[in-house]
Amino acid sequence: MKILESKADAREMVRQWRSASQKIGLVPTMGYFHQGHLSLMEECKRHADRVIVSIFVNPTQFAPNEDLASYPRDLDRDKKLAETQGIDALFIPRDDQIYAPEHKTWVVVEDLSNGLCGKSRPTHFRGVATIVTKLFNIIQPDVAVFGQKDFQQLQIIRRMVRDLDLPIRILGCPIVREPDGLAMSSRNAYLTEEQRPSALCLYQALQLADRLVREEGVESCSQIQTRLRQKIESFPFTRIDYIFTGDPDTLKPLEQVERPLLVALAVFVGTTRLIDNILI
Amino acid sequence: MKILESKADAREMVRQWRSASQKIGLVPTMGYFHQGHLSLMEECKRHADRVIVSIFVNPTQFAPNEDLASYPRDLDRDKKLAETQGIDALFIPRDDQIYAPEHKTWVVVEDLSNGLCGKSRPTHFRGVATIVTKLFNIIQPDVAVFGQKDFQQLQIIRRMVRDLDLPIRILGCPIVREPDGLAMSSRNAYLTEEQRPSALCLYQALQLADRLVREEGVESCSQIQTRLRQKIESFPFTRIDYIFTGDPDTLKPLEQVERPLLVALAVFVGTTRLIDNILI
Repeated sequence: MKILESKADAREMVRQWRSASQKIGLVPTMGYFHQGHLSLMEECKRHADRVIVSIFVNPTQFAPNEDLASYPRDLDRDKKLAETQGIDALFIPRDDQIYAPEHKTWVVVEDLSNGLCGKSRPTHFRGVATIVTKLFNIIQPDVAVFGQKDFQQLQIIRRMVRDLDLPIRILGCPIVREPDGLAMSSRNAYLTEEQRPSALCLYQALQLADRLVREEGVESCSQIQTRLRQKIESFPFTRIDYIFTGDPDTLKPLEQVERPLLVALAVFVGTTRLIDNILI
Repeated sequence: MKILESKADAREMVRQWRSASQKIGLVPTMGYFHQGHLSLMEECKRHADRVIVSIFVNPTQFAPNEDLASYPRDLDRDKKLAETQGIDALFIPRDDQIYAPEHKTWVVVEDLSNGLCGKSRPTHFRGVATIVTKLFNIIQPDVAVFGQKDFQQLQIIRRMVRDLDLPIRILGCPIVREPDGLAMSSRNAYLTEEQRPSALCLYQALQLADRLVREEGVESCSQIQTRLRQKIESFPFTRIDYIFTGDPDTLKPLEQVERPLLVALAVFVGTTRLIDNILI
């Protein structure tokens, strides 16, 4: 497995693959791999001859009050996991490789970026769309894979790729969960032993939403919201950022249930902000 | 010369060229060719094996009160001129080929887009950066050529290409002028016979700025501005949009002359908005 630390090295590697007519897949990550990341790599291998995984903790998608400095990192472990996974190359650029001084260009996806996580993280998706565009331009992959846990991110990237005519196929992968249902996330590492049981509030609330719609036939989204709020608040250490019930394509909230319905949550457990979602 | 009317056709044409290892050049235009456009095509031919010229009057760079509907068009003449010029293909997409319904993604270059033309045309450069990104993603040229008459546009595109890691070399071409000094522009077609002499106010003001700096050693930008204002206002039918004296790289205004100095003008002659600039 190649370790690429500069844009020039990454471009040269990809150029060689392309000149051999190989189909190239990219999995953009912030590292600290868990089973969710490994499932993205697996999916990518199914659709490409060569898979490159990028690890870059992108500063522009963190607000000043957020966890950029403490974001968990373990490059040695990531390298071993990627190697075991049969990845062809890891692209691990240094910060100064990615953002030039006086970086001024942003890719903005309107509307889709405003609600859900965009409300409490107003510059987050601008940072995501910009770094993903940059990675796409450096690697020029045929296919790129993202997780559905960041559902809003996936929709924003799909729209961006369509709107900017990027010749890249975007694949979304299902959420991977711990045995008890907690969605895998690098940020789960922040949870204390005491807080960990409370992190289940997200999954259990989503399961409740599923039952309310499918079994009890609840048609009012505000009724669903109320029940989910009660469920989440029954766990200690929790503080709700948002409960979203709406259209998975437009990311607009709904008053009456329409299928498919996206239920998406962001909840602080202690100081750790966790997200999860379900399509019903 | 091929006429390409869809993104798919353009991509297929370019794919064939690239598989023959040919270097591809793009000249993005809004059509209604004049000598300025032809000089861009000439320059592009010097740097590429295959040259594709796009003609697309991009609606998103016009504000509702601007001249989108009346922008001059003459496709038959453009085709003949491009053919004579030895261009390999014209990409003339239909509007619905370019902007999908619910287009929501914008490429924004901060700071550089705010002053000069950005002040009176606040969404103009967002439209320009977005369409140029789209054309770059459709054609994936090795080199692209732009005129220096739109100096701010050229600087914005250079910055955007750097910031987004687009693997494209950007070339700027000198302003091409009529025998009397008027910068060539498709919009010159709007001028009445009566207004045409007043259009010279831009070139004459820029010549005056050059003399003030080089010969008279004027060091105060506000003094230059005053003299240029007087010069322009001595012509009938004129209304100044801006007189800019500043740094050509940052596009920040200067108080004291520093070389190289960018002097850039936008002046309405009748209802026609003309721009011109000089590097001193």
